Parts: sequence; structure tokens; C-alpha cells
Amino acid sequence: MLPLEGIKVVDLTRVLSGPYCTMILADFGAEVIKVEMPKTGDDSRAYGPYVNGESAYYMSINRNKKSITVDTKNPEGIALVKQLIEKADVVVENFKPGTMEKLGMGYEDLKKINPELIYAACSGFGHTGPYSKRPAYDAVVQAMGGIMSITGPGEGQYTRVGASIGDITAGLFSAIGVMMALYHKEKTGKGQKVDVAMLDCQVAILENAIARYCVNGEIPQPRGNRHASITPFEDFTCKDGVKVMVAIGNNGLWKKFCTAAGHEELIEDERFVANPLRTKNYDQLKPIMDEIFLSKTSDEWYESLVAANVPVTYVNTVDKVVSNEQVLARDMIVEANHEGVGPFKMANTPIKMSETKGGYREAAPLLGENTDDILKNYLQLSDEEIEAVKAKGIL
Amino acid sequence: MLPLEGIKVVDLTRVLSGPYCTMILADFGAEVIKVEMPKTGDDSRAYGPYVNGESAYYMSINRNKKSITVDTKNPEGIALVKQLIEKADVVVENFKPGTMEKLGMGYEDLKKINPELIYAACSGFGHTGPYSKRPAYDAVVQAMGGIMSITGPGEGQYTRVGASIGDITAGLFSAIGVMMALYHKEKTGKGQKVDVAMLDCQVAILENAIARYCVNGEIPQPRGNRHASITPFEDFTCKDGVKVMVAIGNNGLWKKFCTAAGHEELIEDERFVANPLRTKNYDQLKPIMDEIFLSKTSDEWYESLVAANVPVTYVNTVDKVVSNEQVLARDMIVEANHEGVGPFKMANTPIKMSETKGGYREAAPLLGENTDDILKNYLQLSDEEIEAVKAKGIL
Repeated sequence: MLPLEGIKVVDLTRVLSGPYCTMILADFGAEVIKVEMPKTGDDSRAYGPYVNGESAYYMSINRNKKSITVDTKNPEGIALVKQLIEKADVVVENFKPGTMEKLGMGYEDLKKINPELIYAACSGFGHTGPYSKRPAYDAVVQAMGGIMSITGPGEGQYTRVGASIGDITAGLFSAIGVMMALYHKEKTGKGQKVDVAMLDCQVAILENAIARYCVNGEIPQPRGNRHASITPFEDFTCKDGVKVMVAIGNNGLWKKFCTAAGHEELIEDERFVANPLRTKNYDQLKPIMDEIFLSKTSDEWYESLVAANVPVTYVNTVDKVVSNEQVLARDMIVEANHEGVGPFKMANTPIKMSETKGGYREAAPLLGENTDDILKNYLQLSDEEIEAVKAKGIL
Repeated sequence: MLPLEGIKVVDLTRVLSGPYCTMILADFGAEVIKVEMPKTGDDSRAYGPYVNGESAYYMSINRNKKSITVDTKNPEGIALVKQLIEKADVVVENFKPGTMEKLGMGYEDLKKINPELIYAACSGFGHTGPYSKRPAYDAVVQAMGGIMSITGPGEGQYTRVGASIGDITAGLFSAIGVMMALYHKEKTGKGQKVDVAMLDCQVAILENAIARYCVNGEIPQPRGNRHASITPFEDFTCKDGVKVMVAIGNNGLWKKFCTAAGHEELIEDERFVANPLRTKNYDQLKPIMDEIFLSKTSDEWYESLVAANVPVTYVNTVDKVVSNEQVLARDMIVEANHEGVGPFKMANTPIKMSETKGGYREAAPLLGENTDDILKNYLQLSDEEIEAVKAKGIL
């Protein structure tokens, strides 16, 4: 039994943040009914790459879900979506705030037809505040929320994170919010609204950058691949020109590193005996470290530091990631095989549970693939009623 | 009432990934008892910046928790920790796999003393697979897991994300896992082990990079601030030399942008009518966009695009983030004020719930601040028993 078996989720989300949230719920057994516009569907069905005409982007993030097409620009379509929501435990949407209200499906409206409903809204800026009704995408919240200003090769060289961390962290926080609300409902019978803003999530993941600014008044800047408060914690070029990343997070590891490198003299060096000193004296330590790493090849360093239990790795490109022995041993890459689309690979869930093993079960649906099934089995409409709905031209 | 009120969490985590998970649990009402080594405590107490001798790094991530010092290098100390766990609903640890087993506190050991326990382990590589027992830090999993290889100013210029996304995403997935397990336990009475690896989480957030590689065989590379599949979706330099980020995620926004920019002719331009074409013909579109943005100042662009409902922002540094009107309106910056430490600011929870408002309630504990309280009220030891524990020299 999966933890969310029996939980019904009406999924009005598109593209990435909301769909990432409902993917997690689906991975752990929730029945996720994705409502898509007829003909076009989720915007991300138009994003590449494509496998036999289907978007691999879409398919990566919508596994284990069902798709029904309903025209929500039509009042009859909205009435049908409301019927779905009436029977649901959770509704998730990532429209611009105000959109659901305009459709007559704001939380206050839906609470009337389903008082115990959990309503999760994942938006760019949240349902309150002066920017609330503005549209947002990942790049905007990454830029506005500060992570770009601390990522990059050096001062002022602000760089977007190459994955859509603005969407994905909002999807993760939304999933946590839904789980908190489900747990609360299980204990009290009460539903509620969960309001997650992508911008807020960017602020929440800034780590120690806020503290650094507020304590020192110093505006954090990109520092290349270096950590702001931990040293040494970056990549170094080896004799063969290949870089390895090492992360020496405490004084025990510093001793192990110095020993493995054959530079025991550094252990006693007063400039470097503790992390705050190594960080403070970075400019003195950096050239020493650079020279040390140039003395051996990357393979030699990798092997000797792994043996010494010092955190180390090559900088892997995606081809290396999907074939990495640890990634494969953890069942992190799954191959979906949808009839008529063909096989393609995606990341599996990283939440490994001993009693309730979640993750990939079936491929993402084609547009409207489950429309009939949902009308019949979820809404329990008769054949005549289904024909009547179809005759309205809203599917 | 907060959703996790009454839930007892024994927190054996250090630094960032595990503490971030337990912070979320504490934010929503769980009683989180952080077990720290006497004298030194959590490694992150040695990470700057400092406020009156206390680490702001530590304080940012350990609010709402209680601290007890116990020497887990001493068998009597371990016995005391086991007493804590016996009464707990959840234990969270982020040791290197094998460490808890060596201490006699592996999941199999703890299940014997607390059969319904939820045991969450957040480690670098997980509790299975060939790298399992290796140490890891954020920089290592960012480099090994692929996100560095798609972040940076251009091809081959691999860049670490400036926030510790390796830790933080693992903390988020762990929190989801704990919530799934608590929900399952509420329904079935069964505990279980939740095993989250930082490396797995990096793979899970690669977004469409895996699909792009597996479908096209093309190894994704850093693309500066551009999105791989959506165009235009990047920053542009304006007349005053300041950059603005715009994100045009669908064809409706493309029309709005062209109109607001006074370049309606682009709407009908066949090279750019749909997103896949704009992405395919990027090299033709880019110089056109560059020229358009040079025609107005950043303030002019910001105002006109906000008015046109096109997603746009300045690239904010952290000082701008913490004073941003939307961030403040969302109550995302809180000021903690710990007696004897003084005020300092941190990010609040981004999960905004209508019935169960979580987030900052009290400042992080000083090392061992709640030792007596926990012995007396959580373990319910008598004064004599407390004296006996103290006499052992393990606190």
C-alpha cells in the first residue's frame, strides 16, 4: 500500500512547479487527475525535446497521472471541473492569482461545494502582496529572489541556475504543504488553503546569504565554485587538466586531506588549523592548494581521496550522471515505455521508503487519454450522461 | 493548532541537509530535540558569520528547536539518546551510512526499542549502492549529480550553484518522506525507514536535461542565463547598461511582448511564431532582441513590461531581496532576537497555510540550552536521576 492510496487530486497545473508537486503525490499513490485544455493541453506539451511527437519534457514530469481534457474557457467545462473537485481531497493549481476566482473556482467558491478540500496554489508571487497578480516564470524568480546574484564565475557575473530551481523548489514546498494539510485533515477533518510562491521559495533557499548580508552588511556575490563559509570547498585543476571537486567541511577532513596529499606540515600550520581561519586566510591557502593538485592526475587524486575518505568527485556531465554506478544502483533512472511513443528515460523519485516504495509506475498520459475512464469511473456517469457531456463540445 | 503538534522528533543531524528537514518539521509544530556533542555541537556552529559569538549560519537553520548535549562517543551517552528515541515518533540523522549502526542505533536496532518509529536518513549517497559509505558535502553532489555541468556562462564553464542546493533539496525531499511516513503511520500504525541521498536529489531536479540527453544524445551544457527549451527566456542589457530578465513562456506572452515593445511585425514573423521555432531560430532572434532592449532604460522596460503583464525583473542582489516589497509583504524575512545574542534576520517558511500558520516562533537554541528541560519534561526523570546522569559526564 502506498501512503497516498485513495487520495484524489484534481490537478489544474501546467508546465513545471505545480506538475512537479503533483508528480510527487502521484509517485506515492495519489490518484492525480490532470485537467488539460482540449487540443493543446499543458503548455509544456509544446516544449522539446520530442519523442515520436510527444514532449519528453511533459512526459518527465507527468508520470503516474491521468489526463482528461476539459475546456475551462466554457462555463459547461468549468461546471464539469467543479464536479471533479467536489469528489476530490486535494486540488492543486498554478495559475496567476485571480484566475481561479475569475473562473468561479477560487478557494472560497470551492469550499462551498467541498468544505474539507485542501486547495494548494503554487504561483509566482503568492496570493497576497503587491506583485501577486503578476505573471512569473522560473527565470524571473531566480533573478528577483537572489540566487542568480550569488551564482556565477565571479563578482557581478550573475548566472541563472541551469535547472529550473525556481519551479522545482516551489513544487517541493507545495508538496510538503499538501502533506501537512492532509495530515492535519486526517486529525481534525478540516481542509485549508496552501499558498506557495516561487519567489518566497527562492528566499527560503538562499542558505546563509541573508545572514551574511544582514550581519556584515556585505552584499554576497558569486564566488565561482567556492563556498562562502567553508574552505577548502571547490574544484581544483589536476596535472592532466581535468578538475576535481573537493569539500573539506570540518577539521577532521582537513587532517585526512593533508595526510593523503603528503602535506602533513599543513595540519599544524596555524593559518589553517580551523575552518574559520582557512576561510579567512583563503588567499594564502588557495595557491598552496592549486600547486598541490597540479602534482597528480585527476584519476590519482580521485582514487587517493576516495581511499582517504575525503569528499571528492569529478564534475560530471549529464551523460556521466545517467550512467553513474551509484545513480543506477539507487534506481534513479527509469525507462518509461508508452505505447505508441517508445522508450525514454527520466529521473525516478529520490524518496526511498522501506514500507511504501513510491516512484515510477506508468508513463505520462497522452492528451485526454483517460477522459472516458474519468467520466465513467471517477464521476460515475452513465453512458447516456457521458454522451450528453460529449455533445457539449467541451472535452 | 499546528499540523505536527504532539509529534516528537529526535534530531541527530548536523550542518545543513538534515537540519533543513527538521526545521520544516519544527516550523509546523513538531517538538524537535536536537542532540549535539558537548562543547562543540553541530559543525555549523563553527561556520560564519557570527553574531556576538553565535553562528548566524547555525541560527538560520535551527529555529524552533531544542538543544540537548549528549556525548555520543560514550556508551552511556548512546544509552541516553536511545531513551530519547524510545519516546519519539521520528528520528532524523544525516551521518555517513554505517555510523548509526556502529553506534548501535541503526534502524534495525531502533525498531526493537520503538517498533512504530519513523527513521529518516539523509546522506550523501544513500544507504545502498557502491558509494554508500563515502562522505559527501554539497559541492561534491552538485558536481557529481550534473547541475554544475548545466550551470555557467557558457559551454564547459561549469559553475556551482551559489546556494547549497545539494543539501537543501535533500532536506526538502526528506521532509516530504517524513510527512508521507507520518501519514502512512496515522493510517496503519506502521513506522518505516526513509532513505534520501543528496546525489539522488540532484538527479531528480535536473529537469529536462536527462530527457534532452537521452532523446538527442546531446550532452547539455551551460547556456548562460538562457533556458534550453523556452525562448526568449534570459536577461538583456538595456540602454543604461542594467540588465533585465524576461521570461516569455508561451505564444500569448510573445504577442504581448512584441506589442509592448512596439515591434508588432515580429508577431507575424514566421521564424518566431511558436516557441519551438523561437528556440530553433535563437541565433536569428537574439540580435533582434538585443537591439530592441538597447532602445530603452531598464526602468522603462521594467515599467512597460509589468504594465503589459510580461514576466520581467531586475537581477536582485541579496540587499534588494531582503528589502523587496513583495518579499516583505509575504512575511518572508523575520528578525530573531535571542537573549544574549541580539537581533538578526533570516528567511521564514514559504509554506503559507490558512489554518495552520507555521514558520518562525523562537530563535535557535544555544548549545545545550534545553538539556535540563528535556531530561525533566521529555524523559520525565526525577531530580535524583538527573543528578545521576550529570555525574556521568556525558552532557
